[in-house]
Amino acid sequence: MAAPWAHRYAQRTKTAKSSIIRELLKLTQRPEVISFAGGLPAPEIFPVERFLEACQQVLTTNPSIALQYGPTEGYRPLRELIVAHMARYGILATVDNILITSGSQQALDLIAKLLINRGDRILVESPTYLGALQAFDLMGAEYVTVPTDADGLQTSAMEQALRSGPKFMYILPNFQNPGGTTLSRERRDELVLLSDKYGIPIIEDDPYGQLRYEGEHIPPLVVLDRTNLLRDNGYLLGNVIYLSTFSKVLAPGLRLGWIVAPPDVITHLVQLKQSTDLHTSSFTQMVAYEVARDGFMEEHVKLIRRVYKERRDAMLEALHNYFPPDVSWTHPQGGLFLWVTMPPGIDTMKLLDTALRQDVAFVPGEPFFPSGQETGSHMRLNFSNAQPEQIREGIRRLSIAVAHELEHCAAATVGVNA
Amino acid sequence: MAAPWAHRYAQRTKTAKSSIIRELLKLTQRPEVISFAGGLPAPEIFPVERFLEACQQVLTTNPSIALQYGPTEGYRPLRELIVAHMARYGILATVDNILITSGSQQALDLIAKLLINRGDRILVESPTYLGALQAFDLMGAEYVTVPTDADGLQTSAMEQALRSGPKFMYILPNFQNPGGTTLSRERRDELVLLSDKYGIPIIEDDPYGQLRYEGEHIPPLVVLDRTNLLRDNGYLLGNVIYLSTFSKVLAPGLRLGWIVAPPDVITHLVQLKQSTDLHTSSFTQMVAYEVARDGFMEEHVKLIRRVYKERRDAMLEALHNYFPPDVSWTHPQGGLFLWVTMPPGIDTMKLLDTALRQDVAFVPGEPFFPSGQETGSHMRLNFSNAQPEQIREGIRRLSIAVAHELEHCAAATVGVNA
Repeated sequence: MAAPWAHRYAQRTKTAKSSIIRELLKLTQRPEVISFAGGLPAPEIFPVERFLEACQQVLTTNPSIALQYGPTEGYRPLRELIVAHMARYGILATVDNILITSGSQQALDLIAKLLINRGDRILVESPTYLGALQAFDLMGAEYVTVPTDADGLQTSAMEQALRSGPKFMYILPNFQNPGGTTLSRERRDELVLLSDKYGIPIIEDDPYGQLRYEGEHIPPLVVLDRTNLLRDNGYLLGNVIYLSTFSKVLAPGLRLGWIVAPPDVITHLVQLKQSTDLHTSSFTQMVAYEVARDGFMEEHVKLIRRVYKERRDAMLEALHNYFPPDVSWTHPQGGLFLWVTMPPGIDTMKLLDTALRQDVAFVPGEPFFPSGQETGSHMRLNFSNAQPEQIREGIRRLSIAVAHELEHCAAATVGVNA
Repeated sequence: MAAPWAHRYAQRTKTAKSSIIRELLKLTQRPEVISFAGGLPAPEIFPVERFLEACQQVLTTNPSIALQYGPTEGYRPLRELIVAHMARYGILATVDNILITSGSQQALDLIAKLLINRGDRILVESPTYLGALQAFDLMGAEYVTVPTDADGLQTSAMEQALRSGPKFMYILPNFQNPGGTTLSRERRDELVLLSDKYGIPIIEDDPYGQLRYEGEHIPPLVVLDRTNLLRDNGYLLGNVIYLSTFSKVLAPGLRLGWIVAPPDVITHLVQLKQSTDLHTSSFTQMVAYEVARDGFMEEHVKLIRRVYKERRDAMLEALHNYFPPDVSWTHPQGGLFLWVTMPPGIDTMKLLDTALRQDVAFVPGEPFFPSGQETGSHMRLNFSNAQPEQIREGIRRLSIAVAHELEHCAAATVGVNA
């Protein structure tokens, strides 16, 4: 039953995409379901002891700061820790380049508020992170898409896309969500040059950058961007806004992410954040600082890499063993996801229905494309949450559902041809 | 120095209002300043021991839920606790009526996203909470204002305001921020009838409702609204969306608030929240639940009332003792603020400058009015944060600044007349 004043809604909600994921996550709460659907970290390796000590520390030494209102920019020691942490990856920033956000999703909301007017076109990879599409949709974005291959977005298709005048580019260079692909060094160099040539900023979303299981680290776009003017080790100008998060390296339940941008951009984002939620929890920021400090986070990331690499390998092997030859998938060098492409004609929404009857779940490809776009027949599989034996069993179950759909599809084709 | 692509901003930031408060809060961090500026709770009475136990409890029994992604609606036991808590105030809701938000400020952001299209008029009290104006401004709101007196907004001026077709009304009935006034029972009854007659929903913001220091509790608008259809103790329809928060009764550093609305409205708000920050920290929600449960919060609120009543009384007495007779102020029956009206001609922005030189701070009245409106000459004083002796000393210092400005103003008037 709708409110009597429901006609007053600003029509910013689109049910389709988010409801798919939401209904899915509800179904996958049944304990017998093996879920490859969410992007959930492995809870077994949350550093719980360290969190306990951190809470103790924060509440005994600094309770009146931890439980009080705090500055919108974020807790200064945590911003300093982020500066030091990013310097290991070649990102030279000062605290004035950092804004703490309530998870990376809020960074996307703030950037949408900063940059998008109704009808503005945003350049995105196809497919791209559905949470970004949701945040941009909310401010009335339209999209220009650029196709991706095993080396990430195809820069050869960029000039044409850029000439259509997008407001900004939204790029996930490392172990992309949902594709699992990584943008090559050559394409990164090309991209920052194109950004400068056309005067179109890049939003670089890098939640998984540290979770590389093979191959060499490739510098982020914010490092390759030569338009940054460095001063006192911080950058003053630049075409790249860089986003990252503690969700994948500490714990997503904290809801802590950050934005790196020139100070002038940060000033505007701070104002927008003030209207959005005043500031991110002082308590979780201080706890995260106590957990991460003294090199703990870097050590903990090594453990995460070991555990997730094993799970990725288990999934790749199971796919190889169980899946039919006309199904293909990406080989992610890191991150949390891989992307499966089914033969044309398979509807992965229907496949999901069949899969859930086999007690296994995934996310169909459709919500990762801007609405109205050709989506093909895909599914996103997460390999960080389930344990290796569950992964093998889940892929076995999924292969039964896939075989069933392929048969059904073939039968339907025969039916149509008859 | 602005980013080379600064011309791409969507022009949603307005520097004036927020920067006043922000610069203020920076100045007031000097330890010698007595600040009546923020809306900060008293940190001495944060229930720190209880928080320590709660963290211990949550992290030893439920770490893999507390540190993991959670549902957008919020942690179910906390929503159930809110239902039970609100029932004491006559608000009959079920969990399906509740959405947990990252503080009340986020509730305002989500409501702006749900209801405001650029150019929509919003009916607000004059003056009103500046954070609401900021959140509504961001979505392009215009305003219709209704004047307030000692009994809250003047319902006699409502019909005309409503005929101009506002999208919704934003009302703070209890111990209003910044006015400190309380809407009378008669006016509340009138307001819900008007809402129904014109089909214009009410956003009822009630962060301080429990902090009453004198007089009788008055039912909230959501209770008086007869258009709610009750079913199984929850409400299905209604013209009122009710907002409240844990910030004033537990701790603002958690950033936890909630929205009460018909389930259909909650469904839309959940979708908007998903694009905004996925969900509020699982950890802080579970800690807040452990702290608040078993009647602790209700007991703790009694302590807060005792402490704040003493501070309010100290401020009222000091104002009476120190302030000149041509300055007037409200007598709040609860909450955190009172509102001072200066003789015409006094510029409270200039007064703030003088006050800061006396090491005392307040918020000038201007940002509490929609921009471009007649603002008069006011200041908002907070009495919850400073201790009684500091309050007396701070009001003494402020009276020196006031006397100085009055003299200066009189001299200027003489100068003009000469």
